[in-house]
Amino acid sequence: MDVQAVKNHLLSLLGKEKVLTEKLDLMYYSYDSSFLTKMNPESPWAVVLPESTADVQQLMKYAYEHHINVVPRGAGTGETGGSVALNGGIVLDLSNFNEIVEIDQKNMQVIVRPGIVHAELNKELAKFNLFFPPDPGSSQMCTVGGMVANNASGLRAVKYGCTEQYVLGLEVVLPNGEIIYTGGIKARTIKNVSGLNLTKLMVGSEGVLGVITQIRLRCWPKPKARGIAMAVFDQLDDAPATVLEVYQAGIMPSGIEILDSSAIKAVNQYKPEIALPDAEAILLFEVDGNPPSVEYEGNVIKEVCGRRARNVEWAVDPERMSQLWEGRSVTATAAARIRPDGTRVFAGEDISVPLAKVADTLRAIRKLSEKHGVQVVNYGHIGDGNVHTAPVINPEIPEEVERANRLVHDIHLLAIELNGSTTGEHGVGAVRRQYAEIEHGNAVDYMKKVKQAFDDKGIMNPGKLF
Amino acid sequence: MDVQAVKNHLLSLLGKEKVLTEKLDLMYYSYDSSFLTKMNPESPWAVVLPESTADVQQLMKYAYEHHINVVPRGAGTGETGGSVALNGGIVLDLSNFNEIVEIDQKNMQVIVRPGIVHAELNKELAKFNLFFPPDPGSSQMCTVGGMVANNASGLRAVKYGCTEQYVLGLEVVLPNGEIIYTGGIKARTIKNVSGLNLTKLMVGSEGVLGVITQIRLRCWPKPKARGIAMAVFDQLDDAPATVLEVYQAGIMPSGIEILDSSAIKAVNQYKPEIALPDAEAILLFEVDGNPPSVEYEGNVIKEVCGRRARNVEWAVDPERMSQLWEGRSVTATAAARIRPDGTRVFAGEDISVPLAKVADTLRAIRKLSEKHGVQVVNYGHIGDGNVHTAPVINPEIPEEVERANRLVHDIHLLAIELNGSTTGEHGVGAVRRQYAEIEHGNAVDYMKKVKQAFDDKGIMNPGKLF
Repeated sequence: MDVQAVKNHLLSLLGKEKVLTEKLDLMYYSYDSSFLTKMNPESPWAVVLPESTADVQQLMKYAYEHHINVVPRGAGTGETGGSVALNGGIVLDLSNFNEIVEIDQKNMQVIVRPGIVHAELNKELAKFNLFFPPDPGSSQMCTVGGMVANNASGLRAVKYGCTEQYVLGLEVVLPNGEIIYTGGIKARTIKNVSGLNLTKLMVGSEGVLGVITQIRLRCWPKPKARGIAMAVFDQLDDAPATVLEVYQAGIMPSGIEILDSSAIKAVNQYKPEIALPDAEAILLFEVDGNPPSVEYEGNVIKEVCGRRARNVEWAVDPERMSQLWEGRSVTATAAARIRPDGTRVFAGEDISVPLAKVADTLRAIRKLSEKHGVQVVNYGHIGDGNVHTAPVINPEIPEEVERANRLVHDIHLLAIELNGSTTGEHGVGAVRRQYAEIEHGNAVDYMKKVKQAFDDKGIMNPGKLF
Repeated sequence: MDVQAVKNHLLSLLGKEKVLTEKLDLMYYSYDSSFLTKMNPESPWAVVLPESTADVQQLMKYAYEHHINVVPRGAGTGETGGSVALNGGIVLDLSNFNEIVEIDQKNMQVIVRPGIVHAELNKELAKFNLFFPPDPGSSQMCTVGGMVANNASGLRAVKYGCTEQYVLGLEVVLPNGEIIYTGGIKARTIKNVSGLNLTKLMVGSEGVLGVITQIRLRCWPKPKARGIAMAVFDQLDDAPATVLEVYQAGIMPSGIEILDSSAIKAVNQYKPEIALPDAEAILLFEVDGNPPSVEYEGNVIKEVCGRRARNVEWAVDPERMSQLWEGRSVTATAAARIRPDGTRVFAGEDISVPLAKVADTLRAIRKLSEKHGVQVVNYGHIGDGNVHTAPVINPEIPEEVERANRLVHDIHLLAIELNGSTTGEHGVGAVRRQYAEIEHGNAVDYMKKVKQAFDDKGIMNPGKLF
């Protein structure tokens, strides 16, 4: 492929405001947050910054005709290499295509372009007493298009589910430049079971089927109150047992987080003033709803935790709530600092396991950490079995990198062995595609056939997912 | 095709306990609850009653080799002709394949075979303080496999969503007899974003992609309390306006139902002792949760309804709750009795529209009812814009049938015109496939390509969906 000719054509097609071709600009697109692409960055041939569906369509028609790979990208906060052009081609940076097209308060919906940042959307929705519940850690940066492409979730998935639950319809530019509308061309309904559900097929498809150019989301009434409980455990097994007992008491918290002893140490080392109690595990519960409901659930959670926890605290005062939550807030940063010469790498960072196996999983990860001689910090969304592991290494020492890679591989196999998945919410991208057959068996053949149905030339984000 | 040879082969393959070939037996499978199949029943060549995945696999391999259509069927409660072999072939009645394989309380999941009846499943789950929230009107009869195939919902979809939200994984026998496991071969996770989401693609696919033989469902903690409010309105527009104001007050009821004046009249005529107030609309709200939450939300709903309603009543006493709900419970039956010589036909019975257009929709349906001279009764799940219309005719008078069909066609077009869908929860089947292109445009081409990816010989439930 004559890369210079591609650049020239793109410039003539879309103009220099929407096309990047300079080496320095392209370098910015050579990685995302994944360890893989930090170690092995790959610059695309060019970057296109569309501002309309027509721009995307023009690009795709050109790419399709000339068999050029196209890799859609949001804010690049992904941890899987999913938005990096690892096999050459054009990166389509959708972050400038970011309007809120319409907040349809009367129908509890919002229509957005893919580049809108999650936190900005929720700020606007709040003016209408609405919110879009999924709450990824990267809320201040990540785009809603990226969330849809990866079926993102985060802290609130326990009660509110993942992004897919809120996606009512999509405008998608297909690889050949054709535009389809999923969920009904003109539809503004909340409920619609007409036709094969292409909307939900697109959600989480990580850019391998087409380019999402418009998103219709269901919104929920914003709850009026929230409360936070912190419970401290001397036995690791008591943490998941308590989570189950809270569910059994009829309560569905909006979030349930765990810090294990590695995370507690990391936080105390990073910010001694937080002074987390030394323990095997800390659970944080968030409940939301109307004020008397939050109060009631706080009391139940206190009572249930009290059966097994060394101590429990419940708060509804905003200041005390942020203090209780602060340990969790700084965990990711704290993990990066447990070694003065170390860096936290994003790999093996997102397994999910059945709730009943979370304690076994954390113990097994500790053993693997010792076996491979790689320090790790563990935290995560225990309410749905999603464990975030942060390996901390010096990435300039090849042997440490090698050991980290072996640890990560073992963590992924562990997850599958324990009836889990290699990824609870971050996605597969390039970094976990090798596990597709182990996780899904021959279902992968049918995923490939479905991709083929949309992308007969194989130009949409190749080398990802499987 | 030599139908007798097919029957003989099935008998030798699966034995006479699992194969029906007698004319009278086959007649039972010649219709479902749809008007279409009541008027034009089509008996299948044979019926197979599998009791295992291996049975299904044997059948599919045979059917695939010989290009024989296969139509999966649950309890036959569907209203779309979806489970009737309209183009010849074999009906696969899964209602005997109905075990609860495992209630995995610790992981808040249940694994079932497709034939389990919805109400029976929830009875078993209740022993573990769990429930599977979707709540179709046919709960006492319909199978969970049928619910998955149609992405069923019902009264509680406002807060709890549709079936798809709870489906974590499926075992599917494909048309060629191959078995795939969606959501991970060994997975028991709640959260899993690995691979293209074949699970959600299968949900609502109405048997055109494969045969669902096992279902892994997420369950929720059973709420401890519920309450019912009834509000009576003199102006139709005040009903949807009140629904919106309830949402705006931060409340997500588990159900919101509407009876318009036609339904109120029908109920009072059928059971005068219910004595519904004469009004333009009645709203019924159900809220669930913990006891203080229910009490709080009841007060808010009373206050909000009070702004526009002629009167409002709120109840948490079980007996009074069933009295308030009784009008809604008998509506479908009452509709069938508004004419001594009439029958309620299931057609045009499931449109969904944006909440803000529910009042316009009901008015337009009344006008269409007058235009075509067909009496109708309207009720439905107003919380998500799902309007159930019951035309009542004498189906033995061809001219009435003709008029009803014209009315139904106009209702479907009306739904699309008002940014709605021809089906909110019942599905497309044979009766609404003619609207696929109008609703979805060229997206239908891709639905067909996806079907082709799974069903290259076109033997799975042909003539349905599109």
